[in-house]
Amino acid sequence: MIYFCFLLTVMLCGVYGRMSIIPKSFKNKNTASDYEYKTEYFVQQIDHFGFANLDTYKQRYLIADQYWNANGGPIFFYTGNEGDITWFCNNTGFMWDIAAEFKALLVFAEHRYYGESLPYGPDTFKSHTHLNYLTSEQALADFAVLIGQLKRSLPGAANSSVVAFGGSYGGMLSAWMRIKYPNVIVGALAASAPIWQFTGITPCEAFNQVLTNAFKQASQICVENVRNSWATITSIGGTTSGRKFLSSVFNLCKPMSHQSDVDDLKAWLTDAWTDLAMVNYPYPANFLENLPAWPVKAVCNKLSLPAEGEALVQYVADAANIYFNYTGDSTCLNTSQQATGNLGDLGWGYQSCTEMVMPMCADGESDMFEPKSWNFTDFSEQCYKQWKTRPQENWITTEYWGKQLQYASNIIFSNGLLDPWSSGGVLESPALTLIPIVIPDGAHHLDLRASNPLDTAAVVAARIQEKNLIKMWLGQL
Amino acid sequence: MIYFCFLLTVMLCGVYGRMSIIPKSFKNKNTASDYEYKTEYFVQQIDHFGFANLDTYKQRYLIADQYWNANGGPIFFYTGNEGDITWFCNNTGFMWDIAAEFKALLVFAEHRYYGESLPYGPDTFKSHTHLNYLTSEQALADFAVLIGQLKRSLPGAANSSVVAFGGSYGGMLSAWMRIKYPNVIVGALAASAPIWQFTGITPCEAFNQVLTNAFKQASQICVENVRNSWATITSIGGTTSGRKFLSSVFNLCKPMSHQSDVDDLKAWLTDAWTDLAMVNYPYPANFLENLPAWPVKAVCNKLSLPAEGEALVQYVADAANIYFNYTGDSTCLNTSQQATGNLGDLGWGYQSCTEMVMPMCADGESDMFEPKSWNFTDFSEQCYKQWKTRPQENWITTEYWGKQLQYASNIIFSNGLLDPWSSGGVLESPALTLIPIVIPDGAHHLDLRASNPLDTAAVVAARIQEKNLIKMWLGQL
Repeated sequence: MIYFCFLLTVMLCGVYGRMSIIPKSFKNKNTASDYEYKTEYFVQQIDHFGFANLDTYKQRYLIADQYWNANGGPIFFYTGNEGDITWFCNNTGFMWDIAAEFKALLVFAEHRYYGESLPYGPDTFKSHTHLNYLTSEQALADFAVLIGQLKRSLPGAANSSVVAFGGSYGGMLSAWMRIKYPNVIVGALAASAPIWQFTGITPCEAFNQVLTNAFKQASQICVENVRNSWATITSIGGTTSGRKFLSSVFNLCKPMSHQSDVDDLKAWLTDAWTDLAMVNYPYPANFLENLPAWPVKAVCNKLSLPAEGEALVQYVADAANIYFNYTGDSTCLNTSQQATGNLGDLGWGYQSCTEMVMPMCADGESDMFEPKSWNFTDFSEQCYKQWKTRPQENWITTEYWGKQLQYASNIIFSNGLLDPWSSGGVLESPALTLIPIVIPDGAHHLDLRASNPLDTAAVVAARIQEKNLIKMWLGQL
Repeated sequence: MIYFCFLLTVMLCGVYGRMSIIPKSFKNKNTASDYEYKTEYFVQQIDHFGFANLDTYKQRYLIADQYWNANGGPIFFYTGNEGDITWFCNNTGFMWDIAAEFKALLVFAEHRYYGESLPYGPDTFKSHTHLNYLTSEQALADFAVLIGQLKRSLPGAANSSVVAFGGSYGGMLSAWMRIKYPNVIVGALAASAPIWQFTGITPCEAFNQVLTNAFKQASQICVENVRNSWATITSIGGTTSGRKFLSSVFNLCKPMSHQSDVDDLKAWLTDAWTDLAMVNYPYPANFLENLPAWPVKAVCNKLSLPAEGEALVQYVADAANIYFNYTGDSTCLNTSQQATGNLGDLGWGYQSCTEMVMPMCADGESDMFEPKSWNFTDFSEQCYKQWKTRPQENWITTEYWGKQLQYASNIIFSNGLLDPWSSGGVLESPALTLIPIVIPDGAHHLDLRASNPLDTAAVVAARIQEKNLIKMWLGQL
């Protein structure tokens, strides 16, 4: 079920990548946070691009004015992505870290169809027609209209410059916001925004190659072990006794009984390796429960000796245990744990089946996964089965200019090279004021996270450069 | 019924302006033309911005390749506006005049909901939901997708640069196309495109002031006579014998019987003066039936002596006769003649009640019309009554950047100062490569019309400048 990918991953979805860094086991839990903000709601047109439906909905946004110079100080605006905005707010420490220096107003706007910003409340995902307004264009229009309203209504904001911030899909939205609405924002920090992860621009193999390279940097043998593990698991899982062995080694809560359980196991593992590459941060990550610093290295340490057969599987299980149960709190593991459907998952499932068609494939040679081809027709069929709609393969590159970014200005494209999504990122400058910032040892939008004593020199330098560029946009440099 | 304005004018609509230069008496008649083209159809998604409706429609476009260097020669693309594309094709002689010099492929794309490009065929205007996809954004998306398809499918076109051309609303679309899709076109000639005729950007009085100035250039007394005529007509029309007099003087087919007929008469005249200013060309216009050269001057010649009472009305009738019956072919005149609803009229009526909210008013002092204020709330109410939808007052300026055009490039904004629509045009450069071309003695997109021996020096010079700028965009200069 390819169309389940990105957030709601069960089947081989690692191979197709997950867009958000929100770990599935974590979503819908709010972090304890010191950040103080007010929660507000703004009435938006549900349809900005048609006039038959005059329905409105309440878009949630978070606002923090404690650092703001309310006499024209800038507005830092987070263009929310596919999840609860409080989570993005609490995990975008960079904005909080620099707010005082810039005397900035912070606004975190929730993306429609996520979190509390559900156009049709509990019925939002129940109807084909209700889903119609879940597009990136509508989300950008929401942001543009909201910013206009904030500037009109907040005393002192009329002449404030607005800078967009976003990570991952939120970073794509930030970049696209500057592309489509430069009248509304003076610039955008698009962190780990794979705006080129689309048909005809980036080869489908690229994502898994970068992912594999991130593991390779930890250990070449680790990559070979992972690559070999698939056939080994398949082979062992072909018998009842083998499945019993696998259930035991992986400490599964529900012992495997069918051949399909073997596929589920492999998908679960694929997903784990993908997530690990995305959150491969230099310090213990506080949003993944007690994951160690450099978790890819920690995982690969368990896979650093050449192995085969049951020994190899044991190594893989040990490695997976770091991702799924680092503290040892879980008494057993559940391969369907990642399938906890929530609205965010549904939303991204729909988006990836309409606009956000990001071709992904694996060849098993340049990457460490089982070979899997990309077939748009099959993908479209699967989308139609689930959503009664079909993806538009080339639309995003038409709408958001594809590689023709020379007409845009004032966008920072930051990418960590350890992040598999950097495969679709802008790593070289297409124009004078489009600034790529490459963080060689960075994972998925590390730079947007709060500063940390264990931050590497590269991300520290990236943040300094980002601040200076923002100052330039604001005429402060 | 303010919302009837622009094309479908009956009641005081001249005061609110008419967008198109298509005379109502002319529409749906095709000109005999020497221009040779093929008619093609392209299957478009009806909804580019949502995925619940997968319906498609056939967009008509005209294509002429006899001048084309099919080895990468440029594509000149007319962004069709609110009417039959064959009419725009035949009345955009400039493109035909320069096609050979540029070795250009000519394409004229019909705007959805006009001409033959009706998304739901004969039912297109019968349903509220069917009208939902009539927006400028959808039209631009059609153009972008069509151009992409042409470049993929026409041998030799893959590397062709595309230049957009358009006049009036079509010019707005050309400019907006470059603004929103610079990846698709290298530049745009936006002729007489009132992209600033929107709330908060241009005062509502401006249109009628420019219109009045065009008459003032012919004769100050003419303006005063027109200004005085309204009260005189109202006064005379207040009695049965007065209405009989008016019916006779204006040679009405249907004698006036009610007070409301007097309002209709005034609306009919207001519309005539407005149209005249728009088509105030230096030569007899072949698209208005046998209108003389400089028709405003011809009309004002009939209004050049101070007059009042019935004498004034007689002058007005003589003047109106030039517009409505220059050849004398009509045995009588019909004040509801302009109300011949056709699809184009309906389409623009809907657009002006949704996105294209262009505030118009008159004060009777700086202009020659009866005072009439602009009231958005009333306008919205009237729109709701007719279309069951409401206009979005500020949307266009958000979506298309309002006055913040400094982020755009390669757009020519040509305007004739005799054209009332120049009130909302770009007359001064907002950025280095946004080139305003002002034609002091030009009316509505005169420069887009075929060259004519009676063309003024200003329009000849404008066309030379336009050609040179296009050459620059194409790297030919």
